[in-house]
Formats: sequence, structure tokens, C-alpha cells
Amino acid sequence: MSSSAETTPLVAVVMAGGAGTRFWPLSRCCRPKQLLPFAGGRSLLAAAVERLSPLVPASRTLVVTSSLLVDAVRDDLAGLPAENVLAEPAGRDTAACVGWVAWRLARTSPGAVMVVVPADHVIPDGATLRAALAAAAATAVERGGLVTLGLRVTRPETGFGYLELGDGVGAAAGHEVYAVRRFVEKPERARAEAFLAAGNFRWNSGMFAWTVAAIEGAIRAHLPALAAGLDAMMAAADDVGEAEALARFYPQLPRVSVDFGVMEKASPVWAVAVDFEWSDVGSWLGLAELLPASPAGVTMGDVVALGSERCVLVSDGPLVAALGVQDLVVVATRDAVLVVPKDQVQRVKELVARLREEGRDELL
Amino acid sequence: MSSSAETTPLVAVVMAGGAGTRFWPLSRCCRPKQLLPFAGGRSLLAAAVERLSPLVPASRTLVVTSSLLVDAVRDDLAGLPAENVLAEPAGRDTAACVGWVAWRLARTSPGAVMVVVPADHVIPDGATLRAALAAAAATAVERGGLVTLGLRVTRPETGFGYLELGDGVGAAAGHEVYAVRRFVEKPERARAEAFLAAGNFRWNSGMFAWTVAAIEGAIRAHLPALAAGLDAMMAAADDVGEAEALARFYPQLPRVSVDFGVMEKASPVWAVAVDFEWSDVGSWLGLAELLPASPAGVTMGDVVALGSERCVLVSDGPLVAALGVQDLVVVATRDAVLVVPKDQVQRVKELVARLREEGRDELL
Repeated sequence: MSSSAETTPLVAVVMAGGAGTRFWPLSRCCRPKQLLPFAGGRSLLAAAVERLSPLVPASRTLVVTSSLLVDAVRDDLAGLPAENVLAEPAGRDTAACVGWVAWRLARTSPGAVMVVVPADHVIPDGATLRAALAAAAATAVERGGLVTLGLRVTRPETGFGYLELGDGVGAAAGHEVYAVRRFVEKPERARAEAFLAAGNFRWNSGMFAWTVAAIEGAIRAHLPALAAGLDAMMAAADDVGEAEALARFYPQLPRVSVDFGVMEKASPVWAVAVDFEWSDVGSWLGLAELLPASPAGVTMGDVVALGSERCVLVSDGPLVAALGVQDLVVVATRDAVLVVPKDQVQRVKELVARLREEGRDELL
Repeated sequence: MSSSAETTPLVAVVMAGGAGTRFWPLSRCCRPKQLLPFAGGRSLLAAAVERLSPLVPASRTLVVTSSLLVDAVRDDLAGLPAENVLAEPAGRDTAACVGWVAWRLARTSPGAVMVVVPADHVIPDGATLRAALAAAAATAVERGGLVTLGLRVTRPETGFGYLELGDGVGAAAGHEVYAVRRFVEKPERARAEAFLAAGNFRWNSGMFAWTVAAIEGAIRAHLPALAAGLDAMMAAADDVGEAEALARFYPQLPRVSVDFGVMEKASPVWAVAVDFEWSDVGSWLGLAELLPASPAGVTMGDVVALGSERCVLVSDGPLVAALGVQDLVVVATRDAVLVVPKDQVQRVKELVARLREEGRDELL
């Protein structure tokens, strides 16, 4: 079945517009998670692009980011043509991001298959990911509709969305493919446990494949306001150029995720069942799970630890000297130092909110 | 009795040669405790000099420090004549320091009374200190011998030396004066408790008064090798200048404290009983006791604390953001960050030793 996908041009779309505060003070508004050197010294974004490249060459890889980040992203991705980094003038969530790329491709490569991945995940086994994306692309071509990668559920995680699988419909490139019965938003603990026990649930990976025609059709069907905005924006681009058209229309596009706005409503939706090591690196703890640990815990950068245990010690400049501390996260940069117990890392957003209130914009 | 002291020129000697690691990373080899801004934004040294000035003017205040620190000390003490800052080419403990000053004064002001104080103590009530030093100076003139200030014992402290008082011999300038029976080095806890209960013990403050003749005589009697070295150094200074003579002789002077080498052996030794708020600021905890506390604890510099309690949070540059931590010391500078529980601050010296082993001299 994969022969059709192999003859259909794949276009990779790497969504790199995210902003977030969970890695403050290492992450800043101009340097969010996807640009942090969490992939063995490289950025998560650079690793994501490299991971795809044996499947999709740089010439057919598009990275969508925010205009604030576009220069940093181009610097980070020296191997990618500069024009393949697309800048959103404002973040409008993933449906607008995916729609913009689809509307552009409809003009230049209307027969393309898009494989869409986030920029900020860690997936050590690139070959297995590429095989899964090839299977998803093949499914998109063979079966039509929209395709998502469904990750095996290994714990009752309350931080992810889930897919409920319906009937298996066979295999694509060695991967089992299922009809998706429904999408479930982040569940409470008891529901998550039930999903784990049920066996026919998968984590929604945020990685997709579809033909340009299929996603365009699904957006026209389920997000007509977005479709109208994209139509108007593309028409305006012919008159005033893309930059001016983007500035005029993009910030007004509906703000909705592709999961909620399209995937949950579209039909058919297929899930390719995958099972590879994967992390969305959701916090310092998520990062810690990915790195080799010493008795002191996990360290990055210039760190000395004495009599310390199970810590996350990160330096982006100053020496971090930890003496006799346990289960503590310490992150030091030139201008800010965070100290927080591991079990309270989710409160970093409170701290960032406080700094914003106090007008400490230089630290955000 | 104080009339004699008032007609005898007082010379203040501020001992500012100390080096130490207990305030690392804020203290460095070129910026030890006495130069840290622990006196309401000023250095402890500047506060010590100012505190004395109504009793002893800057023109008769001598500050003894190390050659490494002499420029920093002169910068810190803009109101003091530069030549009043004396630089030891090597640290040889307090007997050599005091002896050098006494030998110099024997030539220029042989009738002077020296009042000797450390540079790194906190004494909020300067007027009471000055009255006590005036009483000590008066005692030195009236009774001869060596005089020390004996601080009231308020807890069974194991970190200080003690004086056992003998008979009271009357009052000087409103202060009770006692013969000192013996000096006791830092005691074990049980002994410290016994001293507290006994009532006739005082903490050895490290603050002294004596005439130039009395200390010279005591050094000649009890530290003849030091006296010989000082004699030779002063003679050489006439030939080759003081700097060359210091370089040649000072590093070979016996290394001994004035307490152990002179005070414990000399007779008579008097103690002026004093009772003022005093701290030798022995550690971050000692500093914390001196500063106003919020629920988060004690903070200095750019600090944001959320949900944190009883901490010591110090910044000399970067923002320190403490989130949900208790009883923790965090000290951040541009190039190093220390994180240690309050009950383990004494281990900072281990950390500094480790950095020295690793050749991280730029951080020491």
C-alpha cells in the first residue's frame, strides 16, 4: 500500500509557533521550548526537522512559526531554505496554521500529502517515526480522509488527549490502521485509568497526515469561517503580496485547534497505531525523564552537586552549586534563577504571571 | 576615670584582613565578608569605621588588610586617608597585625592608646560600643595591661571563645571592669551550657584596648620571635623602605592569634563587661538573624518568592525566583548560584574546596 504514497509528493509541516512558560527561565518569549537545546545540545526543532529529512527533504519541509521567532528559527535551521520558514503574524492555533499551509499548497502542489508534526517533541527513534508517518501518508492516499498517529497508552496520563479506536481496517506499511470513533479531551484521573484498562484508546499525538484536498475539504466543511478567511487572504496576497495579506487577515482568523475544530468533526478519520518512545517534554520533570540521571539527578550545563539527590539542575551560564538538596529543580540563566520543588513545577506559570504583573518584561 | 583616656590620643585599628568562604558565592577571594554590603547596603568595614568615627577620627583610624584587598578597601573607605590603609603582604593572624601597628606607633605616637576591632562585625548601637571602647581605653591607661571587651553570654554558643572573669575591680566610664582569670577556646555544648549557667563567663569579643607600650611589652614577653621579626622589619624599613621590608620580613612572622599568643599569657588582663547587640555574622543564618524577615524569610536584592517560607534569598544580579521552598538558602551572582538548606550552610566550605580542586579559580 505504501507504493502510492511513495509516488505522491510528501510535504512535511513542522508546527513551531508555540510559546510557553513551563521552561522559564530558560525559555523566554523569544526562545520558547522548541528552540531550547533539549535534543542532545541541538534544539528540539532542529532535531524534529532532521528526524524527518530521510523521509521528506529540506526542500519540501515547511516550518510554521511566529513572526517574533522567524529569525531565530531560520538561524536554527541553517539547512532549510529561508523561504520554507513561514511566519504567522499572530498565533491563531493549529487549524489556521494547517489551513494556511494547505491553501498555499493547493496552488503549488495540489496533489501533495501533508505530514504534520509538532516541533517540540522528543522521539529518539527517528526511523520508527518515519515508518509510521509513511504509513499514515499511505493511509491518507489510499483511504482518503484525515489520519492521525495514535500512541500506545502506557499510563493513566491526565495531561494528554485520547482517541477512542473503532474497528481495525487493516494495515498500511506494516502498521495497524483503525477508524477513530471519537476524540477525548484531557480526562480526569479515573477516566484516564478506564481508558488505559479498556485497551482501545490511544494518545492523540498531534501528528497527522492528509492530502491537501482532504484537509481543505474538511476545513471548508467544519470551519467555514476559517476557509472564508483563508480564501480572502490568498486572494489579497495576489493583489498586495503575501506579507501584507497575512498582516491584514491572519490575526482575524478563528482561533481553534485542528483537533477540536476539524478532527473531532470530520469523517472518516483514521488512526495509525504506533508504539515508539515519545515525549512532549511537558515540564522540567518531563525533560528529566529523558536525560541520563546521576545520584544527584539530572544535570545540564555547569553544575556541581554535593550530597544532593533526585534533582533537576540546569545552568545556561552561571555555575549551579547544589549542596544537600533533594527533589529540587534549579534553573539558572544569566539574569534569572528558578528554585522550585519537583512536585510544584506546574506553579512556574504563577511565577511568570507575577513577573508579568510587575512589568518585568525583560525576564519573560 | 575617662579623663585620662580623653587626654591620651586614641588610635583605632580595624582588622580587615579576613578571608573566608562562608558567604560564597557572594564572597570571593577579592571580596570577603567585610566588604559585603551587609550593613544596610554599606560594607561591614565601612560601617565599622563610621561607627568609631565619633570616638576616633578618620585621621587616627588605621585599617589593616591584605595586599590583595588594599585597593578595594581604599575604594570602600573614601573618607579615610589612603595611607591609613595598611597592607599585609601575607596574612599572619592577629598577633602580627597588632604587633606591626604597635611597632609603627611606637615611632610616631608612643603615648597612644590602641582600640582594636574586627572589620566584620555588626553592632547596631554605635554609641554604646563607643562608650565601651572609651571605658576600655580608660582602663588601659589607668590600670595598665591589656583590656578586652567581654560580651554578655546569652546562649550556650559553641562557636565563640569565652573569658572567665575573676574579681570585679570597679568601674570605668560606667562599665564594670573585671580581672580575666582565663581565656577558653570554643567549647563543647555541655561546657558552653555550664559557662552560661555559671554567670562569670563572657564571650571574647575580639575587641581590645591597650597602650602601645603595654602591647609591645606583652609581645616582647610572650612572643619574642614575633618581636624580633618586627624589630628587624622596622630596622630594614629605614634602609630599604617599608614596602620592601614588609615583603622581606612579614611573611616570615610567626602565625598566631593575639588571643592565644598574647592575651592568654599576659597579666594583667582586664575585661570591660559589655552588653550590646552584636553579631559576627558567621554565616548566611547569622546574617538572616540581623535582617527584617517576611513570611518568605530574609531577602536581599532582586528576589521574588511565592509560597516560600523561612528562606534566605540573596541576589547580587540575577532575579532569584523561589517557588514553594522552605528553609532554603539561595544566593545568586552573575556567575554562580548556591542552593543549600539552612541546616547545612556550614558545608559551603566543602563546596568551595571542591571548586578549588577542580581549578575553578575564577569562582573563588
